[in-house]
Amino acid sequence: MNNKDLENVAIIGLGLLGGSLGLALQRAFPKVKRYGYSHREVTRNRAYENGTVDVCCDTLEQVVSEADFIILASPIGTFEDILKVIAPHVKKGALVTDVGSTKVDPVRWGRKYLPKYAEFLGSHPMAGSEQRGVDFAKADLFEGAHCILTPTKSNKDESLEFLKEFWSAIGMVVGPVMTPRKHDNVVAMISHLPHVLAMSMVNISDSEDILLCGKGFLDTTRIASGPSSIWRDILMANSANTEKAVGKLIKELTRVQKVLRDENDKAIVKKLDQARIKRDELVKRKLQRKELPS
Amino acid sequence: MNNKDLENVAIIGLGLLGGSLGLALQRAFPKVKRYGYSHREVTRNRAYENGTVDVCCDTLEQVVSEADFIILASPIGTFEDILKVIAPHVKKGALVTDVGSTKVDPVRWGRKYLPKYAEFLGSHPMAGSEQRGVDFAKADLFEGAHCILTPTKSNKDESLEFLKEFWSAIGMVVGPVMTPRKHDNVVAMISHLPHVLAMSMVNISDSEDILLCGKGFLDTTRIASGPSSIWRDILMANSANTEKAVGKLIKELTRVQKVLRDENDKAIVKKLDQARIKRDELVKRKLQRKELPS
Repeated sequence: MNNKDLENVAIIGLGLLGGSLGLALQRAFPKVKRYGYSHREVTRNRAYENGTVDVCCDTLEQVVSEADFIILASPIGTFEDILKVIAPHVKKGALVTDVGSTKVDPVRWGRKYLPKYAEFLGSHPMAGSEQRGVDFAKADLFEGAHCILTPTKSNKDESLEFLKEFWSAIGMVVGPVMTPRKHDNVVAMISHLPHVLAMSMVNISDSEDILLCGKGFLDTTRIASGPSSIWRDILMANSANTEKAVGKLIKELTRVQKVLRDENDKAIVKKLDQARIKRDELVKRKLQRKELPS
Repeated sequence: MNNKDLENVAIIGLGLLGGSLGLALQRAFPKVKRYGYSHREVTRNRAYENGTVDVCCDTLEQVVSEADFIILASPIGTFEDILKVIAPHVKKGALVTDVGSTKVDPVRWGRKYLPKYAEFLGSHPMAGSEQRGVDFAKADLFEGAHCILTPTKSNKDESLEFLKEFWSAIGMVVGPVMTPRKHDNVVAMISHLPHVLAMSMVNISDSEDILLCGKGFLDTTRIASGPSSIWRDILMANSANTEKAVGKLIKELTRVQKVLRDENDKAIVKKLDQARIKRDELVKRKLQRKELPS
């Protein structure tokens, strides 16, 4: 399938990501018909009112029946059941992807439940916010962010090409391509650990004292305002890697603790400089690649 | 001294904070004469060009000689030497404050070195950014942020009132008032620990992998781009409290690690919810008090 041939797309799950996807799709592919599904009626109504989809379906069976391309945008914890239900109803040659934050489980479930005449290839658009729900959906949510793709041997080259083209059209920086296992390992460090960190920082703080905080504390902990059920799913789906990442952080914090105990100002400057230079380089490269607004 | 009687103010240190203070001062007290000092000639010239001060002095002796009110806005590590140098030259009745991030050391030094006819009372405006230097100075840097004050028994009530009025006029939320010791304990948790956290998160991450990161990682680590020399001073000045705060965080992360190892989804939801609710409440209260732009 080619992006130009795309006619009917199904979006399953109409929250922040699913809704934004609908809006981005309309902008990039104005002729494509967007079918949407949410298990909640109120969300289906809001998604339709907001123009995030063209057709709102009451059942999973309906939403996939015409679709050439199906995107799972609900919490990871719902994927397995959804795949079981839609499997008998997907069209021949349909491509299924997801926007979940882990890839080992979704890819395994896709291969397990979908019929041979359909295909599952995992995507991870590294976009989002701490907000939740279709009312926060926006067409440019994905712009400039990376979309990691995790094909396996069972995927056709053509399907990978299709997804690359598709996410580019939505405004994303496509790549890198990696195995689901490597993906889950990388995101444990750059996405799931920061969440655990923000959460833990808030949980050990005094409710009254934090009222005095400056922007530093607010930014450091922003993601801790993210929806609990989604993050439960992510952290459970990637618990082993995240646990390892937490362990790595504990080791480093223990080293910092010793530096503070010894009042070792040379060592603390070294650590401060290393972090500052590394982060400045990150921001510089993201600005160069226009992945950040300048 | 009353704010209305304020004629000559000396700002020592003309970086982001000192420069912004100069601009804010002009806006709030257009008739006050602003004397500024930096140990670097290039900074003195820039500060004058940027209009952050009215008079730029080449020596510490000069900058304090006419001042009724003196503000130390250089890194904490320089305070002790500066106080020694200015002590013989401060005017009778002069009030000296600082904008340093710790208060035990500055207050101790102020009492130790200043003559009996002058007074030191510590301030901590909880404002700043990861940027550095007078070129980033802005008149509204302090707006909406808290300014903690740390008087001791040796301060006159009148001086505390003066400072309360002054920081309010600059746009700050004044208070709470607490002892220097209590202050350093509180900020270790809400300001210095987040910095250690951001630094450590960056230091354990792979330079290539973080190029894929989303806004979550960037926000969580933003403050790690702050100037190393200033943060060395802060962390060294508050090493004991910060070490304790790091220890508290390590304990919590160890608990989270166990929850992940046990794949205890109920426990993780509990922690996620606790953090989310606490942070949402923080943001809500800051919005209510107009300490955040809505």
